[in-house]
Amino acid sequence: MSRKNLRFGVLGVGRIGKIHAENLVNRIPGAEVAALADVFADELARVAARLNVTATYQDYRQVLELPEVDAVAICTPSDTHKRVILDAAAAGKHIFCEKPIELSVAAIEEINQEVAKRGIQLMVGFNRRFDPNFLKVREMVQSGKVGTPQVLKITSRDPAPPPEHFIRASGGVFLDMTIHDFDMARYLMGSEVTEVYARAGVLVDPVFEKAGDWDTAIVTLAFASGAMGVIDNSRKAVYGYDQRVEVFGSGGMVTVRNNTPDSHIHLDQTGVHSALPLNFFMERYTESYLREMRAFVEAVQGTQPVPVTGQDALLAVVIGLAAAKSARENRPVKLAEIH
Amino acid sequence: MSRKNLRFGVLGVGRIGKIHAENLVNRIPGAEVAALADVFADELARVAARLNVTATYQDYRQVLELPEVDAVAICTPSDTHKRVILDAAAAGKHIFCEKPIELSVAAIEEINQEVAKRGIQLMVGFNRRFDPNFLKVREMVQSGKVGTPQVLKITSRDPAPPPEHFIRASGGVFLDMTIHDFDMARYLMGSEVTEVYARAGVLVDPVFEKAGDWDTAIVTLAFASGAMGVIDNSRKAVYGYDQRVEVFGSGGMVTVRNNTPDSHIHLDQTGVHSALPLNFFMERYTESYLREMRAFVEAVQGTQPVPVTGQDALLAVVIGLAAAKSARENRPVKLAEIH
Amino acid sequence: MSRKNLRFGVLGVGRIGKIHAENLVNRIPGAEVAALADVFADELARVAARLNVTATYQDYRQVLELPEVDAVAICTPSDTHKRVILDAAAAGKHIFCEKPIELSVAAIEEINQEVAKRGIQLMVGFNRRFDPNFLKVREMVQSGKVGTPQVLKITSRDPAPPPEHFIRASGGVFLDMTIHDFDMARYLMGSEVTEVYARAGVLVDPVFEKAGDWDTAIVTLAFASGAMGVIDNSRKAVYGYDQRVEVFGSGGMVTVRNNTPDSHIHLDQTGVHSALPLNFFMERYTESYLREMRAFVEAVQGTQPVPVTGQDALLAVVIGLAAAKSARENRPVKLAEIH
Amino acid sequence: MSRKNLRFGVLGVGRIGKIHAENLVNRIPGAEVAALADVFADELARVAARLNVTATYQDYRQVLELPEVDAVAICTPSDTHKRVILDAAAAGKHIFCEKPIELSVAAIEEINQEVAKRGIQLMVGFNRRFDPNFLKVREMVQSGKVGTPQVLKITSRDPAPPPEHFIRASGGVFLDMTIHDFDMARYLMGSEVTEVYARAGVLVDPVFEKAGDWDTAIVTLAFASGAMGVIDNSRKAVYGYDQRVEVFGSGGMVTVRNNTPDSHIHLDQTGVHSALPLNFFMERYTESYLREMRAFVEAVQGTQPVPVTGQDALLAVVIGLAAAKSARENRPVKLAEIH
Repeated sequence: MSRKNLRFGVLGVGRIGKIHAENLVNRIPGAEVAALADVFADELARVAARLNVTATYQDYRQVLELPEVDAVAICTPSDTHKRVILDAAAAGKHIFCEKPIELSVAAIEEINQEVAKRGIQLMVGFNRRFDPNFLKVREMVQSGKVGTPQVLKITSRDPAPPPEHFIRASGGVFLDMTIHDFDMARYLMGSEVTEVYARAGVLVDPVFEKAGDWDTAIVTLAFASGAMGVIDNSRKAVYGYDQRVEVFGSGGMVTVRNNTPDSHIHLDQTGVHSALPLNFFMERYTESYLREMRAFVEAVQGTQPVPVTGQDALLAVVIGLAAAKSARENRPVKLAEIH
Repeated sequence: MSRKNLRFGVLGVGRIGKIHAENLVNRIPGAEVAALADVFADELARVAARLNVTATYQDYRQVLELPEVDAVAICTPSDTHKRVILDAAAAGKHIFCEKPIELSVAAIEEINQEVAKRGIQLMVGFNRRFDPNFLKVREMVQSGKVGTPQVLKITSRDPAPPPEHFIRASGGVFLDMTIHDFDMARYLMGSEVTEVYARAGVLVDPVFEKAGDWDTAIVTLAFASGAMGVIDNSRKAVYGYDQRVEVFGSGGMVTVRNNTPDSHIHLDQTGVHSALPLNFFMERYTESYLREMRAFVEAVQGTQPVPVTGQDALLAVVIGLAAAKSARENRPVKLAEIH
Repeated sequence: MSRKNLRFGVLGVGRIGKIHAENLVNRIPGAEVAALADVFADELARVAARLNVTATYQDYRQVLELPEVDAVAICTPSDTHKRVILDAAAAGKHIFCEKPIELSVAAIEEINQEVAKRGIQLMVGFNRRFDPNFLKVREMVQSGKVGTPQVLKITSRDPAPPPEHFIRASGGVFLDMTIHDFDMARYLMGSEVTEVYARAGVLVDPVFEKAGDWDTAIVTLAFASGAMGVIDNSRKAVYGYDQRVEVFGSGGMVTVRNNTPDSHIHLDQTGVHSALPLNFFMERYTESYLREMRAFVEAVQGTQPVPVTGQDALLAVVIGLAAAKSARENRPVKLAEIH
Repeated sequence: MSRKNLRFGVLGVGRIGKIHAENLVNRIPGAEVAALADVFADELARVAARLNVTATYQDYRQVLELPEVDAVAICTPSDTHKRVILDAAAAGKHIFCEKPIELSVAAIEEINQEVAKRGIQLMVGFNRRFDPNFLKVREMVQSGKVGTPQVLKITSRDPAPPPEHFIRASGGVFLDMTIHDFDMARYLMGSEVTEVYARAGVLVDPVFEKAGDWDTAIVTLAFASGAMGVIDNSRKAVYGYDQRVEVFGSGGMVTVRNNTPDSHIHLDQTGVHSALPLNFFMERYTESYLREMRAFVEAVQGTQPVPVTGQDALLAVVIGLAAAKSARENRPVKLAEIH
């Protein structure tokens, strides 16, 4: 292989780590996987064999010591992100880290300062920005096809709630689920959120209430531009993964449909039938996972800043914290109250 | 014609009065138009000639004196509604009145008490309830096709703002425009609204600000059932009259598309193109105007209560007043604060 | 009523006669119904009462004698059309006649000559020309939106076969059912058909075979312009009345969707579901029946030729006869072989 | 890499060869590329470098001599297919060959006999069978979702004509373009074609006439089952690559939409706009190229017959020859006349 390839250590080969490792090995020109790390030896061996990677380690720090590793993809559990990022930054590796990098403002600021000091690149895995449909919406908004954006609408519904232990560790619906929509809101509207009002409830499963969380929410956003937005979330849509956005403005409107496994239309005596949305994020965002990692590789190799920064991670968390506070206190909350 | 026909006096033959008069003359079995009234003599004569109605009066009170008139359709300017309703009730006529019957709680309660005392029927013109698409949504919700309703979404955008004098007399966006959506929310969800949060702004035209009004709004609703809802409004959608609803629940989701003048799909080198939504309410709700008047006639003749009552008018206004208060004070407002 | 109204005698008040009579009474400015005729006295009385028409006759010839009748709408059984047309022409009445006016070339030519001689107007009920969707397709073709038309596709499927006695008297699928599509082909393409190849079979019900008829067919058309077309027919689509057209050309393509009773979209665990096409022609073509009669009234009153002439009737029948010959002999048949 | 991988020689690394080579290297478990061949040394070197393949040859016969090569993917020009297949068969290699394997019945039969004698597997590249949408249609037909299939409709339009030299060498529209549709017809309907009638013309570009070819065609098919079908083709759809199928039967209908690069819907003052179909086959059938090669690898490794055989190639060519004869002689042609 060529000398100029960006050589990755993939840290964590669980569900999402496998996706990134496979994309880096097979589908991203200019990248290769030099080492894999995971605490689970069996899974590590299986993935390594399949991808033909020989260097494997159970301790991620061993990967950070390898001089041939230029960058890491951090796919370890969320509560380890800060530690792994700081270690990787100290080792001078460029960093792609899955979202969320951290759940508190202080922790993210510490990360961002450390990264800035080391002069490395840090990209955060808000993969939806790279989805061809949402990308098209952004392009149309930016090129003026809807005029001045006035109203943003995002519907984001999961097909089924996560397991209870996940809910308890997730940071709550706004930091775990809606955080993607908050990032999307900033991305699509090209304006910062200044205030939120969140109405949240437990309509799907009492387990959320026991965990001090909510499963259903409607969040109103105010943007610095004067525009408004609304996000509606549910932890359970029986018909699948519902992911829609709409931007309305002075010149028109643009929206996208959900993705489906096929486009068949079937008519019989009972009605017209077609395929449900793709279920779940692994299928729905296959293409965006690939494109985001390509973007990371291109940014690092081109010595340009990466497209989703630690600052983006910070701002999404700030909105999430404001939304949670708003829902608890049933009043609009300005972001300035949080940070 | 048959003796049992319900004989109408149509009071006011402007835009909406003409629609009702024509429907009553030509398309509603069991109804006929016995008299027309309007202060503008020329227009009155034209409509009367076209519809072959011989009894015409410039003063609506003369119609109320006619013993052969069983019912009136009140299509006079909104600020006359209360007076005409009270006069018609005193004359013992059944009443169909265009929305809004009044803009204050006290006035509507006075009307409702008077109507109850006289033992007549009063129906309010929330015509959208009779639209075949929205009716289908309600039927599916009521028959359990979406399970327990959890989230309601309504998008309601006008093609263009009304003239300034209309804006100033309208009672504001929430009582003039969103009031239809508030009624639709109660109708579709089968549960009462208990609290609202409205974010409103002037993004379309400064004339709204001068009139102390807004042109763009997002309103979050809490229902007694625990469900939530959101309405987004704009006074100006350049692509036409955008009227969509969606009900999401534990068992699925139901939504409807906008109506278009035709279903053509045109593909050329630049893209795939199809027809814009029907523009404006006269075209969009043609069928619902017809069906609501049929429903009124059937209810009166069947001696059953009419399907949209003075109580419905009251509750929509209460929500509207709460929304306006919420927007002004930027906080959620419980309906109990209003009434 | 105004003196200038076109006064109609409606001859035959069966299914289609009722539609025309009701439209003429209630929904067509400039027209009125002066008399009704039908051999069935009871039905005649019912329709007359409902429409408030006092002059009724069991013998249509009595209507033709009325001096106040300007025009007739012939809705009697198909096998009486020729006789009624000739009588009406002799009486100097303008004629709207349901399709088919006759099934043989000779009979139609006799009718057309007689009509020409009398100086009256004859319009044939190819109502689909007046459907808003098909009209839009024609407008787009004529205004050059698809460039030079190259390929026409028509799908026309009935929801269920007619009764056996109807099949036996129908003239066969090409003269009874496809004849609408043949007329539509000429109308949409703006070019005459010169040759057809029809492949036909009995795939739905053996009753068609017993009657010497077919229930399924694919007909290839050659147009004088060099363009081609294909029509596919079935007597039974379990999902309803399937009526689609597509015109493809050097500059693009235009097509239309089927009409549905509502636009709801329902998602549940099993899929995405929506409404079947309107079923049957009475519902599907409600608007086109109204518009065709308006067009007849406007043409006669404007002293312009009517938009669907006896010549149009003749040409559709010639194509139908060629198609039947083609299917029987399994070879392409030039229209010049027929007429 | 694992010992059991199927090791490929990819013969020809032009447009389609690159796709297969890349899929085999990166995306097909159980396969690897052991050698590449192409007469153009520069392109060969570029592809080899990119895919990290070290063994490259300008003469494909050198690849056939490599003992480590188990199978070949033949992507050389169509007029070399027969010779390369026979050489590969003689060398005992399993063969995947791009369509068409040959254009004459005699040549294909010779190939099939040779392949059978050598006991190797031969798969033909009718990639559309592996498209997720068409696959879904087939599954629904086979599982009875449309009842007994009665009518097949295929629309297949290219975005632009091929260059003149390609047209002259292509074997004509029916063997070059419609051949895919003929294979699809057999595949979807599960019944053999017995007779065809083709109407063809030159409506797009006179170059087709000069080459003794056509650019526009409508082909009627009769199936052994009694069902019928129709294919319409054009060499030039300005709006892109139009690939639709529809199967209609006694129990319903199933169809699929064209694939688009994204699902955006844009509304502005001029209309509703969305994305054109993917253009061209490289983009449209990306997924099916991958899936067909996977199916080949799985079949060979599983020692099962491959899913698209030399017999399938033969039958598609027979239908194509019958269609060409039908178009020339303007009469229906039975397949028995050809073979």
